[in-house]
Amino acid sequence: MKTLHLSETREFKENGIKRFLLHDSPYFRVLNFNLRAGQVFPVHSHPAEGQLTIQVVEGKGEFLAENDAAIEADTGDILVSEISEPHGVRAKTDMRILVTIAPPF
Amino acid sequence: MKTLHLSETREFKENGIKRFLLHDSPYFRVLNFNLRAGQVFPVHSHPAEGQLTIQVVEGKGEFLAENDAAIEADTGDILVSEISEPHGVRAKTDMRILVTIAPPF
Repeated sequence: MKTLHLSETREFKENGIKRFLLHDSPYFRVLNFNLRAGQVFPVHSHPAEGQLTIQVVEGKGEFLAENDAAIEADTGDILVSEISEPHGVRAKTDMRILVTIAPPF
Repeated sequence: MKTLHLSETREFKENGIKRFLLHDSPYFRVLNFNLRAGQVFPVHSHPAEGQLTIQVVEGKGEFLAENDAAIEADTGDILVSEISEPHGVRAKTDMRILVTIAPPF
């Protein structure tokens, strides 16, 4: 049992997305990515079985999908995707996302 | 691929904890529980392999552990626990939590 604090990882980078690995186990991996307004987590996918969630914990932007299709992403919105499905994020404001991947690949 | 909206499940009950099952798959289950100030999710555990996270998305309270040990739980705090470890939550204010269980049992 342990406690993570999103308040401790509220850091951004001007020249790229700031990434924090918060938890990794055989069951799931939890990451926090912080994006400055305008930064993009490019659409990608992995040939692995499993699913992931991308939760907006602060700010707003878009979830990205195949062919850069965009889905509005406000604080409190959660994308559920297969790991093997193309997914990404574009930040319209400074934006913090929490990603949970199960199982880790 | 689908999108969940925590803004759509901000409902409370006066006589118990309001529960929403947001996602269920072979990989993980995601639930939102909303607690009025003073409500308690009693300490419990399940004899299953796997881990869970309890993320405070609004309000504040305490994560509970064995023998009702209490850990401060503010918005943005995340408890990581084995499914088999005793865990619970006490709300000091109206409080919303997001629970992710992997794998579902």
